[in-house]
Amino acid sequence: MKTYIQYLEPKERPTSFYNIIPDIEKYLKMEIPPVLHPATKQPVTPNDLAPLFPMELIKQEVSREKEIDIPEEIQELYETYRPTPMIRAAQLEKILDTPAHIYFKYEGTTPSGSHKINTALVQAYYSKKEGVKKITTETGAGQWGTALSISCAHFGLECQVFMVKTSYQSKPYRREVMRLFGANLIPSPSNSTACGRKFLEEDKDCPGSLGMAISEAVEVAAQNDDTKYALGSVLNHVLLHQTIVGLEAKKQMEKFGEYPDTVIGCVGGGSNFAGFAFPFVHDVFRGKKIEFLASEPEACPKLTEGKYEYDFGDSAGMTPLIKMYTLGHKFMPSPIHAGGLRYHGAAPLASILKNAGMVRSIPYPQIETFKATQIFAKAQGIIPAPESAHAIKTAIDEALKAKESGEKKVIIFNLSGHGHFDMQAYADFLDGKF
Amino acid sequence: MKTYIQYLEPKERPTSFYNIIPDIEKYLKMEIPPVLHPATKQPVTPNDLAPLFPMELIKQEVSREKEIDIPEEIQELYETYRPTPMIRAAQLEKILDTPAHIYFKYEGTTPSGSHKINTALVQAYYSKKEGVKKITTETGAGQWGTALSISCAHFGLECQVFMVKTSYQSKPYRREVMRLFGANLIPSPSNSTACGRKFLEEDKDCPGSLGMAISEAVEVAAQNDDTKYALGSVLNHVLLHQTIVGLEAKKQMEKFGEYPDTVIGCVGGGSNFAGFAFPFVHDVFRGKKIEFLASEPEACPKLTEGKYEYDFGDSAGMTPLIKMYTLGHKFMPSPIHAGGLRYHGAAPLASILKNAGMVRSIPYPQIETFKATQIFAKAQGIIPAPESAHAIKTAIDEALKAKESGEKKVIIFNLSGHGHFDMQAYADFLDGKF
Repeated sequence: MKTYIQYLEPKERPTSFYNIIPDIEKYLKMEIPPVLHPATKQPVTPNDLAPLFPMELIKQEVSREKEIDIPEEIQELYETYRPTPMIRAAQLEKILDTPAHIYFKYEGTTPSGSHKINTALVQAYYSKKEGVKKITTETGAGQWGTALSISCAHFGLECQVFMVKTSYQSKPYRREVMRLFGANLIPSPSNSTACGRKFLEEDKDCPGSLGMAISEAVEVAAQNDDTKYALGSVLNHVLLHQTIVGLEAKKQMEKFGEYPDTVIGCVGGGSNFAGFAFPFVHDVFRGKKIEFLASEPEACPKLTEGKYEYDFGDSAGMTPLIKMYTLGHKFMPSPIHAGGLRYHGAAPLASILKNAGMVRSIPYPQIETFKATQIFAKAQGIIPAPESAHAIKTAIDEALKAKESGEKKVIIFNLSGHGHFDMQAYADFLDGKF
Repeated sequence: MKTYIQYLEPKERPTSFYNIIPDIEKYLKMEIPPVLHPATKQPVTPNDLAPLFPMELIKQEVSREKEIDIPEEIQELYETYRPTPMIRAAQLEKILDTPAHIYFKYEGTTPSGSHKINTALVQAYYSKKEGVKKITTETGAGQWGTALSISCAHFGLECQVFMVKTSYQSKPYRREVMRLFGANLIPSPSNSTACGRKFLEEDKDCPGSLGMAISEAVEVAAQNDDTKYALGSVLNHVLLHQTIVGLEAKKQMEKFGEYPDTVIGCVGGGSNFAGFAFPFVHDVFRGKKIEFLASEPEACPKLTEGKYEYDFGDSAGMTPLIKMYTLGHKFMPSPIHAGGLRYHGAAPLASILKNAGMVRSIPYPQIETFKATQIFAKAQGIIPAPESAHAIKTAIDEALKAKESGEKKVIIFNLSGHGHFDMQAYADFLDGKF
C-alpha cells in the first residue's frame, strides 16, 4: 500500500518559525526597504508602531534572527489542530492522467478553516502578555475575522471586528461564526468611529471597503491604550508565523520521500503563499532548484501588472508606506468571490522575491478557477475556498503541461482554506451566473 | 512540551474493520435477532435484500468474521483524509478546572465534514464493483447525502438524493454542496415516484419526512436493476465501516499513553456511537472496565424511553422489521436542530449492548447541548454539529463530576462532525430563540 497522507509525529513538529529576512540580505545581497511614516516619509521607529502593535510583534517585524522560537503556549495551541495534513492528490492525478505527482497542504482542517489562525493565535498571545484588553481588526470575506475571534476567545481578549458592510449583509453565517466566539461585530463604515461617521456623511448608503474598515479598526486601537490592532497578512511578522505551514510541508514531503519541483500558492496579501513557500526558498538560496508560482485573479493582478514601489497599506492612506507590488491604494477590484485576493498590494517580502525573479505570477479569470476547482473537488472530495481555487488552477495546468512533456514533476500547492462558507459562490458558478 | 494531538503513521493505520457480532455471540451468549420480512415476518434471506444492496454488503451484514479487510482501494481513499486527529481538549480542561483528561476524536476534518463518508465510500465502492450505475438515498440534515455525493463522484456513479423538502428549502448551502459533487437532488415528497405522488395527493404542501424520503429512494432502487439503495446508519455493515473511527482512536490513545474510563457518543441511528465505541467494547468483553454513555435529545429519547422490540426502519412501514430500541416508527420528534438525531430507532447492534446493560443513555434538552457546545467552541476553537453537541454536553458533565469527586478520569468522546452548515441553529441559539 502506498501512502497518500502524511502528518508529523510530536518530535517532528516545528518549534520555531523561519525568518527569511537574514537570508534575503545575505543571498540577494540587499537591504530590506524600510517602512516609511505616512506624514514624514522617514523610516518608522518601533515607537511609531507601538500604539498599534504589541512590542514583541514589532521586534519580530524587524528581527534578523534566522529562527524565532514558537512560544510553548502557542505550540500547545497549535496542537489543537496542527500539523495539518499533507495529501497526495492521487485521485486528481488519475483523472488528469499525468505523470506528475501532485501534493497539497490542507489548511482547511484548522478550526478557523484557513491558515489565518496560525498568526491570529500568536498576535493574540503577545497582546495578552503585554496587558492588552482588546484587539480591533477588519475583515472582508471573514476568514481573518474568524481566526482572530477564535484566538481572542482563547485568551479572554475582547475582539472588535469591523466587517465590510456588504459582506456583513451577504454573509450572515460568517457573521454568526464570529459572534459564537464572542466577537463584537460592526458593519463598516459605522457610526462608532470618527472616520466611519465621515464616510457615512459622504454616502449614508456606503457599502464599505476593506480600506475603510482598516481605517476604523486602526482609529479605535490608536485612541485606546489597552487596545491594539491586528493585521491578517502583508506584514513581516504575519508571514513569519505562517512559515509553520511550509516548515511542516517540508518535513511531510521528506516523509513522502519526494522534493518539489514546483511550489504554488495564491496571493492576496501574500501570507499563505509566503508561509508555504519561504521554507523552500530557504533551500533555493542554498542551491536547490524550484519554480515558485503565485496565482492571482485577473481582477486584481498586483504581481503581474502592479508596480514595485512605495504605497499605503489602506485605501484611505492612513497607514505607513511600504515597498511592494501594488496596483495603487485606490485600486478597486471588481467584486469576485475570492474576497481574500482583492487587495491592491502584495507583502513586501514576497514582492522582493518577485522583483528578484524568483517568483512567477499567473493571473486567472474567475470562471477558470472555479472550473478547475470542481474537477479537484470531485476527485478529492474537498470544497476549497475561492481563493485557494487559484492555486488549484495553477497546479492542474502545471500537471497537464507535465503530461504533454512527459515529465515526472513533483508539484505542491497550499490549499489555504475550505469553502464551506462560500457556497453561494459555488451556487452562482453552477447556475452559470459568471 | 506535552503532546495534545495524535495522528497515526502509515504503518499504524487500521487495515481491517472490527466486526462485533462474533464477540456479542460469544461473550453475551446470545444469537443476533434476525431481520424479518415486512410481509411474511420470516427472517429475510440475502436474496430478499439483493434488489436494494450490493451482495458484498449483504454478506458483511451477516458476517461472523471477527475482522473484515478494508479493500486496498478504500484504504487509499481513506488516505485522502484519515486518520482524523485525536485531540486532548486541554483548553477545555483548564476552563472546567477538572482533574479529568478529556480527549475527542474529530471527524469534522473529513471532506464531507462528518464520519458519514467512512461508510459512503465503502458502499459506493462495492456498488461500482458489482456493476451498479446509480445509488439512491434519502437525507435530512444533509451530512449523509453529502458523504454519498462525494463517494459517488469518486466512483463515477450517478447519485440521486431525496432530500426532505423542508430541509431542501431551509438549507440551500447543503444543497449546493451535493450539487457541486454532481448529485441529482430531489425535494421529497416528489412526483418522480409512485409513493411520492401518493404522499402529494394526500397533502400537496407536505413538508416531507425522513420516512417518506426513504420510501422514495427505496422505490427507485427496487424498480431498477442497475440501481441500489444506500443507508447512512442503523445497519450492521454501516456500523462495521464506522469502526475505523474507534480503531484509530484506540491506537491514538495508546500513543497518548492513556486508556479511557468513559467513552461517549451521540446516538441518531447509532453509527457514530457504535463506530467509536465498539473497538473499546471489544476490550470490555476481554476484561477492561469502561463506562459507555450514549447522548440523545430529549425530543427523541429512543434509548432512554423507547421499547426494545421489532419495528420498521421507515415511517411508512415498507422496510424489513428489525429488533431495536424504538419510539415507534410513526413517532414524530419535534423539529430540533440536531436533525441527525431525529430517528425513531437505534441500530440493532447498539440496542443489544444497551439491553445488556453495557450502555447508559442520557437525554438532554436542546438548549443545554448548545450551552455546553459554546463553552467547548470557545475553548477549542471548533464549531461542532448540533448532533455532536450532545456528546460534548455529556463529556463536560462527566468532567465536572470528576472535579467534584476529585477523580483523574480519562473521558473520550466522538466529535462526529463540524457545524459549518448549521450556523442558522447557532444564530437562533445566540438570539435566544430556543
